[in-house]
Amino acid sequence: MNEDIKGKIETMGAAALSASRELSTLETEKKNQILMAMADQLMADADTIIEANGVDISAAEQNGLTSAMIDRLRLDESRVESIADGIRQVASLPDPVGQIMDDWERPNGMRIRQLRVPIGVIGIIYESRPNVTSDAAVLCLKTGNATILRGGKESIHSNKAIAASLQSGGELEGLPKNSIQLIPFTERESVKHLAQMDQYLDLIIPRGGAGLIEAVVSMARMPVIKHYDGICHLYIDDECDPEMARKLVIDSKTQKPSVCNALETLLISEQVAETLLPLIASDLTERNVELRCDERSLALIGSSAVPATDDDWRAEYLDLILSIKVVEGIDEAVRHINEYGSHHSDCIVTVSESKADQFMSEIDSATVFWNVSTRFSDGEEFGFGAEIGISTDKLHARGPMALRELTSYKYLITGNGQTKV
Amino acid sequence: MNEDIKGKIETMGAAALSASRELSTLETEKKNQILMAMADQLMADADTIIEANGVDISAAEQNGLTSAMIDRLRLDESRVESIADGIRQVASLPDPVGQIMDDWERPNGMRIRQLRVPIGVIGIIYESRPNVTSDAAVLCLKTGNATILRGGKESIHSNKAIAASLQSGGELEGLPKNSIQLIPFTERESVKHLAQMDQYLDLIIPRGGAGLIEAVVSMARMPVIKHYDGICHLYIDDECDPEMARKLVIDSKTQKPSVCNALETLLISEQVAETLLPLIASDLTERNVELRCDERSLALIGSSAVPATDDDWRAEYLDLILSIKVVEGIDEAVRHINEYGSHHSDCIVTVSESKADQFMSEIDSATVFWNVSTRFSDGEEFGFGAEIGISTDKLHARGPMALRELTSYKYLITGNGQTKV
Repeated sequence: MNEDIKGKIETMGAAALSASRELSTLETEKKNQILMAMADQLMADADTIIEANGVDISAAEQNGLTSAMIDRLRLDESRVESIADGIRQVASLPDPVGQIMDDWERPNGMRIRQLRVPIGVIGIIYESRPNVTSDAAVLCLKTGNATILRGGKESIHSNKAIAASLQSGGELEGLPKNSIQLIPFTERESVKHLAQMDQYLDLIIPRGGAGLIEAVVSMARMPVIKHYDGICHLYIDDECDPEMARKLVIDSKTQKPSVCNALETLLISEQVAETLLPLIASDLTERNVELRCDERSLALIGSSAVPATDDDWRAEYLDLILSIKVVEGIDEAVRHINEYGSHHSDCIVTVSESKADQFMSEIDSATVFWNVSTRFSDGEEFGFGAEIGISTDKLHARGPMALRELTSYKYLITGNGQTKV
Repeated sequence: MNEDIKGKIETMGAAALSASRELSTLETEKKNQILMAMADQLMADADTIIEANGVDISAAEQNGLTSAMIDRLRLDESRVESIADGIRQVASLPDPVGQIMDDWERPNGMRIRQLRVPIGVIGIIYESRPNVTSDAAVLCLKTGNATILRGGKESIHSNKAIAASLQSGGELEGLPKNSIQLIPFTERESVKHLAQMDQYLDLIIPRGGAGLIEAVVSMARMPVIKHYDGICHLYIDDECDPEMARKLVIDSKTQKPSVCNALETLLISEQVAETLLPLIASDLTERNVELRCDERSLALIGSSAVPATDDDWRAEYLDLILSIKVVEGIDEAVRHINEYGSHHSDCIVTVSESKADQFMSEIDSATVFWNVSTRFSDGEEFGFGAEIGISTDKLHARGPMALRELTSYKYLITGNGQTKV
């Protein structure tokens, strides 16, 4: 069985590589026509997709999944419509492939151009939400990449139906065969085979919890772009507009607490903590936020808070919980964030330009904010149109990872017979 | 012992991370002063370094290393001087760190800047040449990165002396402690500990043969940038200037055959093979190049050539050997190169702009040449001043990897209290 799965996944890899060569030379307009046809096909296949999804839902109910998980899994007419709308939106975005990134001439007369090109073949490993099947595949396709998808077993029937619909719809407009392939095996070993197939895959992107990412990292032979936790901080400096600070804390923490760019730890200068922290605490407790405090902030907030443990400083709650610590000032705040944070998104609230400059220079995170809610750490909010995730890596892609980050480049050198001798 | 080495390497990792935080905020001028002081110190320490090198040379002689290997290992006054000159040259190059790569404003008034920053901590694993100790460390330092070096055991004494000299010379001008560290252990397990220490290392670069790279790839938990073989091709189209074709073949193959951008396989259109190939064969045999030919080219060249085997199409000779194949035309050439090449550097010789465009579009290689010797695939020749290698990866760095590719970026977002709600 093992060899059988391995062999079949390798066959998919070879087919993806072949598709990627054709995809790499498609014009933007052709790719957009393909994407529009994929969206139309998805709507035409809505009934089939919803029926396949019903099989997954029944299995999930029998296996006792929580109602929240089942809700994330469920597809109906309006959700399929929204997946199709997402595809049409990607069609409308500018295509980074073909862009001349740099262009210069050398003293010997040869001209060097750096051309943006697709990466090639991208593997996407994800957990149960079936919409990721489409979201990930179309971002890769827009940038001329072939994909091999491996979704969670809970959504296998939905994923198969969506991937088949996308591929067949695209083929009506000339999508190369095997541009979008879904691994039909739910065995865990299929992840390992995919992650070790560096003769065909140029990149692997795991989308899901830390356990999934960790497993892929330890097995993968090709580059992995990781989207780890967001343990986001907001530091309130002594020189700040207190009303702005209150507003930013409320927004960063409560506007959507379940996402990676939500606030998890509040740091506040000791010089303003006494006056400002009780107001912030009451803002938050009114909004049902549990406060976990170091000794000094606990003393200022009182009985509406609980003591923090050491684990709290490294916790990504993704919930209505906030850890709070009083610090001496900006230097301690920077040290704390670089030590305990996840290098994702961190904010300073201050009116001092010099302190903002220090913070933005010293904080080693993908996105550093000055007087802006951490919730804006997001590809859409950056104006990228769509994102495949928020990278916590420093190589190739850092922060919101969008179309541009799904490309590579090559150098084109033209001359008239230049030789070294 | 195992735990002891592991613990010591982890201590080095933590120290490197701490140094990298300080390095990341150093001004360009300060870094250049540090580099100049390092070059001066290296010259002041020349006697000590040459003495340490003598220990390595004696061991190499006792262990029966070839005279070529011993020569690569040997340091004398002029070689130390040349290492110091290399450092001064890096000081004179522009610093990419601090560059604003992009800058835009969103409709809600927040301003987003993308700032080029150091990567952080870089591990370099290399084989026996002691000059790599300095070359790699100073390129990383110029871009604000801390390094942990692990050189081959044959040059351990030389490497220790060079690294100590660089670090101590730099400290005279304010280089943070532990910015340049060399692993003092020659045990192979030290490579493994380094490659798995992703809590401290952001990137690992193996410099050496395929066996070394392969070992690092299979162990590493952090990104690895690989500098694999160059199996470089030159395709002579039927529409070409025959004298230019001859000149480019001679230069690409014979000017320096031992390097990764030297020509290894010649492809020639069947329409010009009969007239042109005998001339090329005589050019090359005059220069002592062994020719390994497919059936058709063998028939045209005759007894000065030998038949190629299947292995020849995937061989990086790094020697005065060339494989030759007659092809139908550009389509077969493209298919052959994408199938058998190593995606490093490939050239078309043609006067047809449309065929050149096709070749440059379809060849999936880091550098694609039109009427230029493959020997120009090199950071210096690109005008980058220095390079740490030629990446055969597609992520982050592709082709000549220079200072810019030793950087990452972060997003700085400034506003006046923007919230999502």
